[in-house]
Amino acid sequence: MVAEIDVLSINTIRTLAPDVVQKANSGHPGAPMGCAPMAHTLFAKFIKANPSAPTWINRDRFVLSNGHACALLYIMLHLTGHNISLEDLKQFRQLNSKTPGHPEANHGVTGIEVSTGPLGQGISNAVGLAIAEAHAAATFNRPGFDLIDNYTYVICGDGCLQEGVQAEAASVAGHLQLGKLIVLYDDNHIQIDGDTALGFTEDVNKRFEAYGWHTQVIADGDKDFDGIEAAIEAAKKVTDKPSIIKIRTTIGFGSKNQGEEKVHGAPLGEQDIVNVKSLFGFNPENKFFIPEEVKAYYAEIQKKGVEAYDAWNALFAKYAAAYPDLAAEFTRRVAGELPAGLKEALPRYTPADPAVATRKLSENVLNKIAPILPELIGGSADLTGSNLTRWKGAVDFQPDSTGLGTYAGRYLRFGVREHGMSAICNGIHAYGAHIPFGATFFNFISYGLGAVRLSALSHHQVLYIMTHDSIGLGEDGPTHQPIETLAEIRALPNILSFRPADGNETSGAYLTALQNKTRPSVLILTRQNLPHLVGSTVEKVAFGGYVLQDVEGKADIVLVATGSEVAIAVDTAAELAKLSIKSRVVSFPCWELFDEQSQEYKESVFPEGVPVLSIEAMSTYGWEKWAHASIGINTFGASAPAKDLYKKFGLTPDQIAPKAKKLVDFYAGRTPEYKLRHAF
Amino acid sequence: MVAEIDVLSINTIRTLAPDVVQKANSGHPGAPMGCAPMAHTLFAKFIKANPSAPTWINRDRFVLSNGHACALLYIMLHLTGHNISLEDLKQFRQLNSKTPGHPEANHGVTGIEVSTGPLGQGISNAVGLAIAEAHAAATFNRPGFDLIDNYTYVICGDGCLQEGVQAEAASVAGHLQLGKLIVLYDDNHIQIDGDTALGFTEDVNKRFEAYGWHTQVIADGDKDFDGIEAAIEAAKKVTDKPSIIKIRTTIGFGSKNQGEEKVHGAPLGEQDIVNVKSLFGFNPENKFFIPEEVKAYYAEIQKKGVEAYDAWNALFAKYAAAYPDLAAEFTRRVAGELPAGLKEALPRYTPADPAVATRKLSENVLNKIAPILPELIGGSADLTGSNLTRWKGAVDFQPDSTGLGTYAGRYLRFGVREHGMSAICNGIHAYGAHIPFGATFFNFISYGLGAVRLSALSHHQVLYIMTHDSIGLGEDGPTHQPIETLAEIRALPNILSFRPADGNETSGAYLTALQNKTRPSVLILTRQNLPHLVGSTVEKVAFGGYVLQDVEGKADIVLVATGSEVAIAVDTAAELAKLSIKSRVVSFPCWELFDEQSQEYKESVFPEGVPVLSIEAMSTYGWEKWAHASIGINTFGASAPAKDLYKKFGLTPDQIAPKAKKLVDFYAGRTPEYKLRHAF
Repeated sequence: MVAEIDVLSINTIRTLAPDVVQKANSGHPGAPMGCAPMAHTLFAKFIKANPSAPTWINRDRFVLSNGHACALLYIMLHLTGHNISLEDLKQFRQLNSKTPGHPEANHGVTGIEVSTGPLGQGISNAVGLAIAEAHAAATFNRPGFDLIDNYTYVICGDGCLQEGVQAEAASVAGHLQLGKLIVLYDDNHIQIDGDTALGFTEDVNKRFEAYGWHTQVIADGDKDFDGIEAAIEAAKKVTDKPSIIKIRTTIGFGSKNQGEEKVHGAPLGEQDIVNVKSLFGFNPENKFFIPEEVKAYYAEIQKKGVEAYDAWNALFAKYAAAYPDLAAEFTRRVAGELPAGLKEALPRYTPADPAVATRKLSENVLNKIAPILPELIGGSADLTGSNLTRWKGAVDFQPDSTGLGTYAGRYLRFGVREHGMSAICNGIHAYGAHIPFGATFFNFISYGLGAVRLSALSHHQVLYIMTHDSIGLGEDGPTHQPIETLAEIRALPNILSFRPADGNETSGAYLTALQNKTRPSVLILTRQNLPHLVGSTVEKVAFGGYVLQDVEGKADIVLVATGSEVAIAVDTAAELAKLSIKSRVVSFPCWELFDEQSQEYKESVFPEGVPVLSIEAMSTYGWEKWAHASIGINTFGASAPAKDLYKKFGLTPDQIAPKAKKLVDFYAGRTPEYKLRHAF
Repeated sequence: MVAEIDVLSINTIRTLAPDVVQKANSGHPGAPMGCAPMAHTLFAKFIKANPSAPTWINRDRFVLSNGHACALLYIMLHLTGHNISLEDLKQFRQLNSKTPGHPEANHGVTGIEVSTGPLGQGISNAVGLAIAEAHAAATFNRPGFDLIDNYTYVICGDGCLQEGVQAEAASVAGHLQLGKLIVLYDDNHIQIDGDTALGFTEDVNKRFEAYGWHTQVIADGDKDFDGIEAAIEAAKKVTDKPSIIKIRTTIGFGSKNQGEEKVHGAPLGEQDIVNVKSLFGFNPENKFFIPEEVKAYYAEIQKKGVEAYDAWNALFAKYAAAYPDLAAEFTRRVAGELPAGLKEALPRYTPADPAVATRKLSENVLNKIAPILPELIGGSADLTGSNLTRWKGAVDFQPDSTGLGTYAGRYLRFGVREHGMSAICNGIHAYGAHIPFGATFFNFISYGLGAVRLSALSHHQVLYIMTHDSIGLGEDGPTHQPIETLAEIRALPNILSFRPADGNETSGAYLTALQNKTRPSVLILTRQNLPHLVGSTVEKVAFGGYVLQDVEGKADIVLVATGSEVAIAVDTAAELAKLSIKSRVVSFPCWELFDEQSQEYKESVFPEGVPVLSIEAMSTYGWEKWAHASIGINTFGASAPAKDLYKKFGLTPDQIAPKAKKLVDFYAGRTPEYKLRHAF
């Protein structure tokens, strides 16, 4: 039941938010004012957390999916005792502040679970957070020990509910019966273009019912605080369905322009703020004002959080006594430490082993590591049999009622939902106890790039297992053949792309990806078989590139290639030998890691004075960084058997060798510019 | 009502499809067999088309959204007299055949309206096709002259209905009440991972009802041919809602593995094909067999199409007599000819004009050209006030009943649906009478990249108007600031990216984009104001890059920049002049077009022997192609006022000039490698 202090708290938020935006002279006051009742209700009455132990694994998660409303989130984090001061609120949207224009997870502010702002991501991440919770609970809870039982709460707006990524994730959540996921939909009828009548007239709750969600409506979210509280209580009681509560609100409630688009994305102006404060019984002279009663109230809330945390720790101590192995494993998982024996478990190969596709070699790795890496959880966007991502003995993550798996299962059936998959993986990682992976054809990583970008920005260790990585997929043709795709990933900061050439490199790519805990990795794998190469190693993948095969004395040319083209480079070297041209072959599985090596190491791979030819069955865009000439494909692909395509696109040793010779001749008597020496 | 010949025709398709796939030893037989009844019903009884005039504007459109089932489409096109021969069917998925692994629009085969295969695209394109139809009808029809009244029919599978792009487009279609859009949903319960029970358990029809669609169910789509026909008839009668008909089918109907995933993506095998043929009363010895009766039946259908076409031409002749101006305009539009006076209408500027953001300059262009270019139709993904894409006097494309516009309106309210927007634009262009545009923040083109890629592959002239193109957007921060985004586009084949530096270049970018009829263009525009530059021109944008400002004699350095950084390059040149370094400034609005210029022209811009420094406020990835050193941003951005960010990221003349000097010094006494000379 709502007391006077709740009303005062809500009005505090409603008057504080416009101050924050006004001071920055930039930002979004409308949604924070409209969402103040639901945010206060959640934080004051439901969210179980301890800001002094912000990574407590069983805390309730809160996601502000409409990230542009972050003035609200920062205010709530300040009120609840997270590391945002009133001064930080005054630095909203300023350089190097803790309060950037949209919430950034893993950037030093506690209580920000995921980065939001790009619409549709937060609510989709929340599906991942809820999956991770359900999986952790099923894995670690024991009778009398509900170690994991947290909720995931979301506030989202109309924008998030228009995005496809949200539709994908919401359908998954309904199927998975994620009862601990509760979404509060700020139904304010206003989007940037104006009234939602312009283009968003669907029946949202009916749609969510179609997905299998529980739905409720609050007709007056500006005033019916009891209703909001009761609806959240009711949602918590529904254990086999996620819940959405559609709450009709007035954007910018209290402003003279309330209910209009004007209050969405610009400061209210000083005069309107005076009116707002007067309306809510606040002294207009006061800026950034929080009444002492509100501070005291939130201090009480914080205290309850500490008590819950202490009680949980006491529970965990008993659990550790009763289940020491499980507790140790739990502790390892939450600390993000890799288990022992991982490297030793990886398959290794010799050139005598038969040729195998790297997607199959990836399956070999998964078969070996999945049993000893129980934090690995993931699946494919409905390409399991093609991506080969389901390891032996895998159990599906499914509600018991489906008869298809259990919540302790670790194999996810994402469906044909690449964007949702990627955003869900971000959420699973954000939970803090898993290493998630998602799989599809490499070309379709583009469908999910909005979320992949946030994996990188938010330091989520997500493994993107991408097969069918080039024209080598053959007959499916240009709609499925990546050309620009690797450049997309390489141009993105804080992400690793691996294109392994054979078995050892595939094992090495997994090892390196698993060891890189603060960034996502993309594993780019072939459909077609590749030979195991002389000179390939597991370990050298971590260097990004290395000399696979060399000649005596100084080489006339360096052939640098990735993935399936490394074997072609080796064969080209043999062709060139017939022409008395000495070739060094460099395998270059991870461009980004090579770039991070010492100058000395890099020079040991690409020696000065030797021209470099790159060979990669996709766009040559960007290769000028390393190579003096490039063999690749700068058009779309074609539909035909893979061998025909390699021939058509000039990617055969007999076609490459003459070009390599031309490159050598081009530099005869001249020194090629050294790509590793820079003016600054 | 279904006759014996219909059954024979359906069984012909069911036996022909496995032959096509078997011969290729690759492909998807299951869906064609399962969808044979609905495909036959559509083509034999509903689709109005004339394969000998395949671009007839009022033909009914058919989209096979589950493009992997293209054996079916090719068979139907063969039967109906399109330019696919029986021999072409035998060349399925082979090099240079007319029957690639997924349907490719604008690649020489008639009757393929849009490229499909990437799931969710076809059904979303169909929304665009239906919008284009509704708009063309509202624009050109007159009492007694229903010049435009075609339907758009779609077959789609479970996969398309799981994709977010579909969800976005379907919500738009419901809002827009597109009554002439009819979707047949092949509800076969099988996806690649297995039964749809694994992860697709939503109530599809209920979801579409929530969007405002009309829904029907056919319980036995394998046998209830009358039911399918009646349902399509019923759907046609619903004029104010798009329709979806959920048709329960058996994938691979007739195969020993019917109803299983096995028949989805691999040939049935010779023995099973023998069984299938026997089952349907065909001689198993015959391959690629079409009974004479079926040929005759389809010849009749073709004849009806010719009659409809002739009748339409007669109608058009009368229309031309009654409305000569309208008819002339109609003819111009359908021929894809630009109107006269376009270039003359473009705004031009001098350096005396005040600084303006290129997004605002884009609005100026739209205000000038929209009235004289009535084929221009488009809108924003709910960022109209930020993208500035709504020209003066624009009318919304909306159903009359909304009171918000009419079907003759040309401004589209896409909602926060970037992927759907892009796919819808592809469909609008595919209709053949419009130049569509879509707008959002540049960073969020990544959300729609799956569709943008198909704009390029399918030669759709779509204008992507992308504002807030760099850290220059300021406070919104790294979640909104493009870094890798331009590299993504530049690495993609057959697309133009324009980053204009000022008013003249913005006008030039539009002109060039409009003149490039067989590829999409991305217009990349600033939020912040930019000065009009001395030397900028409308015309030279078509060259991709040009000398904006030069020095007497040989320059010591070339500064090449795009968009907002060109003015910074000009200021840097002034700084360098103080150091007695002579700088040429090259404005480089369109990388792709520059690359297409003659060697002579390119050398006139980048002279041999002069080092080149690129300046661009995003990833330097790829710039080594033109530049000897690069200034850019290879991390994510930050949230702060734009000026602070330019300073933070080193993009101010005072910070660039010392680096430029270092570059000049680096090459003192040496000749930099000439980027325009290649070994091959």
